[in-house]
Amino acid sequence: MNFRTDLAIERCEIFGEKAVSGVETEVFEAHKSKITRIEVTDCEGEKAIGKPIGRYVTVEVAPFAEHAQFIDDSLYAVTEEIRRIIPPTGSVLVAGLGNIRITPDALGPKCASMIFATRHIKGELLRATGLGNLRNVSAFATGVMGETGAEAGERIKGAVQVLMPDFVITVDALAARSAERLGRTVQMCNTGIVPGSGVGNSRQEISRRTIGVPVISIGVPTVVDAAAFVADCKGDESSISESGFGMMVTPKEVDLMIERASKLTALAINCALQPEISPEDMLILTA
Amino acid sequence: MNFRTDLAIERCEIFGEKAVSGVETEVFEAHKSKITRIEVTDCEGEKAIGKPIGRYVTVEVAPFAEHAQFIDDSLYAVTEEIRRIIPPTGSVLVAGLGNIRITPDALGPKCASMIFATRHIKGELLRATGLGNLRNVSAFATGVMGETGAEAGERIKGAVQVLMPDFVITVDALAARSAERLGRTVQMCNTGIVPGSGVGNSRQEISRRTIGVPVISIGVPTVVDAAAFVADCKGDESSISESGFGMMVTPKEVDLMIERASKLTALAINCALQPEISPEDMLILTA
Amino acid sequence: MNFRTDLAIERCEIFGEKAVSGVETEVFEAHKSKITRIEVTDCEGEKAIGKPIGRYVTVEVAPFAEHAQFIDDSLYAVTEEIRRIIPPTGSVLVAGLGNIRITPDALGPKCASMIFATRHIKGELLRATGLGNLRNVSAFATGVMGETGAEAGERIKGAVQVLMPDFVITVDALAARSAERLGRTVQMCNTGIVPGSGVGNSRQEISRRTIGVPVISIGVPTVVDAAAFVADCKGDESSISESGFGMMVTPKEVDLMIERASKLTALAINCALQPEISPEDMLILTA
Amino acid sequence: MNFRTDLAIERCEIFGEKAVSGVETEVFEAHKSKITRIEVTDCEGEKAIGKPIGRYVTVEVAPFAEHAQFIDDSLYAVTEEIRRIIPPTGSVLVAGLGNIRITPDALGPKCASMIFATRHIKGELLRATGLGNLRNVSAFATGVMGETGAEAGERIKGAVQVLMPDFVITVDALAARSAERLGRTVQMCNTGIVPGSGVGNSRQEISRRTIGVPVISIGVPTVVDAAAFVADCKGDESSISESGFGMMVTPKEVDLMIERASKLTALAINCALQPEISPEDMLILTA
Repeated sequence: MNFRTDLAIERCEIFGEKAVSGVETEVFEAHKSKITRIEVTDCEGEKAIGKPIGRYVTVEVAPFAEHAQFIDDSLYAVTEEIRRIIPPTGSVLVAGLGNIRITPDALGPKCASMIFATRHIKGELLRATGLGNLRNVSAFATGVMGETGAEAGERIKGAVQVLMPDFVITVDALAARSAERLGRTVQMCNTGIVPGSGVGNSRQEISRRTIGVPVISIGVPTVVDAAAFVADCKGDESSISESGFGMMVTPKEVDLMIERASKLTALAINCALQPEISPEDMLILTA
Repeated sequence: MNFRTDLAIERCEIFGEKAVSGVETEVFEAHKSKITRIEVTDCEGEKAIGKPIGRYVTVEVAPFAEHAQFIDDSLYAVTEEIRRIIPPTGSVLVAGLGNIRITPDALGPKCASMIFATRHIKGELLRATGLGNLRNVSAFATGVMGETGAEAGERIKGAVQVLMPDFVITVDALAARSAERLGRTVQMCNTGIVPGSGVGNSRQEISRRTIGVPVISIGVPTVVDAAAFVADCKGDESSISESGFGMMVTPKEVDLMIERASKLTALAINCALQPEISPEDMLILTA
Repeated sequence: MNFRTDLAIERCEIFGEKAVSGVETEVFEAHKSKITRIEVTDCEGEKAIGKPIGRYVTVEVAPFAEHAQFIDDSLYAVTEEIRRIIPPTGSVLVAGLGNIRITPDALGPKCASMIFATRHIKGELLRATGLGNLRNVSAFATGVMGETGAEAGERIKGAVQVLMPDFVITVDALAARSAERLGRTVQMCNTGIVPGSGVGNSRQEISRRTIGVPVISIGVPTVVDAAAFVADCKGDESSISESGFGMMVTPKEVDLMIERASKLTALAINCALQPEISPEDMLILTA
Repeated sequence: MNFRTDLAIERCEIFGEKAVSGVETEVFEAHKSKITRIEVTDCEGEKAIGKPIGRYVTVEVAPFAEHAQFIDDSLYAVTEEIRRIIPPTGSVLVAGLGNIRITPDALGPKCASMIFATRHIKGELLRATGLGNLRNVSAFATGVMGETGAEAGERIKGAVQVLMPDFVITVDALAARSAERLGRTVQMCNTGIVPGSGVGNSRQEISRRTIGVPVISIGVPTVVDAAAFVADCKGDESSISESGFGMMVTPKEVDLMIERASKLTALAINCALQPEISPEDMLILTA
């Protein structure tokens, strides 16, 4: 089955109101944002929505209004959910996936460049800055295979073997079914990622199984596959098996959307990782 | 009537095989490329296809294969048609329209940055380089109103008043109806441009009437309006009056497409303006 | 005489403690910053320091510490001095000079891209945003002659003829004599600018005389001319007449310096122009 | 002893005409370029010039004239020397060192982005392109520690463990003593690199010892340390022990220099690695 979406929440929607065996869903509101926690509990659930056993959380944030503040309810909601899904302690490697030269695919590398890397800040300096208790963080963008000759997964695996983080966070642009979700939904899960799976161009899986440490994946949908878009508009699901045309649908304001989503994601990750630093100070530290 | 395309050739296609009064069309092949010359000869033609009286030429170039040469049949075909549509002599200002930060809209500014500007190269230097007979060329990107506070047309008008070129060439990314045309069609016309008209976001007209000198407009389609895309897929023209969703459709390889199209367009303009310099030398001069 | 510095304050220093006829100097502290106001009052002063009759203000800001806040004493000091030197009302065009691809020369274009342009925001929208009383601002980067074929001055002149601002603000990277001033001094004057004069590569003057409206020039020194640097180290002024080697001296952290200086300058200009918007809100509006 | 230069040739020059024990030098001309091969043969030589036992080759290329061709004598000379110093067969990882946001430090990352990566091109595709016999190449930029939290050496080590290349090529911007060498000298050696050593900011050594496979290092000098520059101008070597001021000296045309040097280096590496592809075809493949 071809879902043409990376979002667990959209895959569940296919089943409508009816309960899906092996999939538990909880919806609530916090910080003025709608939060949906989906738990895939067994193989039946795995098969139904095509996602491995694990936890999938979606935060629907306020629309990125043109002049929105960065430190607002959305940030608090995303930060809180990230903090809940990552290990409470331990060092981390943040890897930005995707192609920085394709605007809707640039979320990962842009976000990686705004992560507050701390792994190299040692003893004296730490004390001098008064940041005694920083979590050990490293960060980089994986680049794309056409330019590096290596899969994103290989780049992460190599880094993990040398930097030896306790876990990995990947950040990637996702594909959604609904254009309304673009730039307005943050999904996070504890099962890793198969990059490109939402647009029919699957790459090597990046997960505990392939990398050796837990992988938390965070993403924001930035495109709708053109075939899925048409099928939705037609209201005819069967047509989705078509080619996809090699085309994608994005908002006309895609550059603004990516800019805001990268900043929100990076700031939320930074705040989730370093709870002792206030969002205001973090914004300054990484500006 | 809302055509949702900037291409004269696509607007003519609506009428199918039947002759349109006030519109003359000639199709032929040259340099292995299909060339269509459309002449809007009177008000009736103007009304039928929603384009002012004048000449519209479309060159359908070979698909931008991943490792295509830059100096090939496509280049010769485009260069030749540009040379036919511009005044044979006189100084020129090349203006790149569009937003460099939105990949599919970056054609204009990218192209402008590759134009071989010569206006500042004076006497001695000209002789020293052996380029005695250069046409006087200036070039810039107009920027976007949200950032400059000025319309592209105002930016061009101001430059024309000081630099006093004999004519202007604008370069802009266009909207097409057919996804197959994206990145593979070069349109040029001698009637100027209303930027954004193909995506329902019209800006100030840029033409002899508003600028005071002839305006040749060159463009390459890089997006399909999402509403038009759906209407086409549905085969239901009436649905096109819908919103357009603020969404656009682009190829997944949009960065590569823009890169190639910008280079082809810039090189063809440079070669059309300076016929004494070979394409090979021009490529080196502007690399 | 070759001063090899764009800073009026450094040209005065040559005369040491001794009074210079036609040059009045006032030094004081405000917002923890040292402020020097130099008034060139007649031709004698003009000749002595090689700067036209007019006002030159230097604000020496706190060193850009790595994690400095943007909204601090330095910002207040620079904003206040800009507000004093610009006309109290009227529309303005902000022009960023320099080459965005050469790090130490990128101050102008980077700053221009952060200016809050308002000229296109009209009636309804203004009321809707609650920003009823915005000063009319347009902004752009002039580009460099090697790429555009036009002088920065010509680009500004053309824009002024169409946009008709009441005055112009130019922003440019400057040359200093003392390496310690790099990135830490903001100079503003009401006499316009001769771009490149500090590094021996003078371009067309940009001033009321050439442009037709008052020109306020704001700049931050980012390089020291290599010949001046060596002469200073040798303590031998006579050697400065040498070539200059076509070389410049910059801090190793030049990217960080340019980033901070562009942001400070842009934010101070924005705040000086729109006093009804707080620095905090302005930061968000232009982020 | 502080040499303040990364170039073996400049360290030898300190000894003037006199023979240095443990250092053998051969100078000749090929492809209109001056080539110097220095062999450090024992510990005495190692101590004298502060470079480990091994081979250091310098190619002095023609000045990068503004409109130089890319495929010329300089390219042939550099390609040939690279081909002589790398293993004749085997897979390779090319790592670009340095900070892409500081113009004179951007050589490595810019070069890495132009390397023809082939590792991911498999069977069918290879045959289809007629490039049956490609050497296996991967490439990436290491990023800088302040942003990634990891040393360049750690990034390379991790990649080597997963991609398992037979050897590594590093590309980095170097420091020279003589401003005349900037952008005009290519140094390559078979002993790896200690990044930043030429500007007094040493990072982790990248060599067979630390990485586990042979490391060929290629570099072009792009800066002179300000302290060294002054000492040279003064003709007073003793003063070089001074601070260095945290300043560097670069040509005013630094962006053009970096652009040309990155392209030359990348094209030469690509041609040295894939001798069956002509320089002309390689230029097109990586354009």
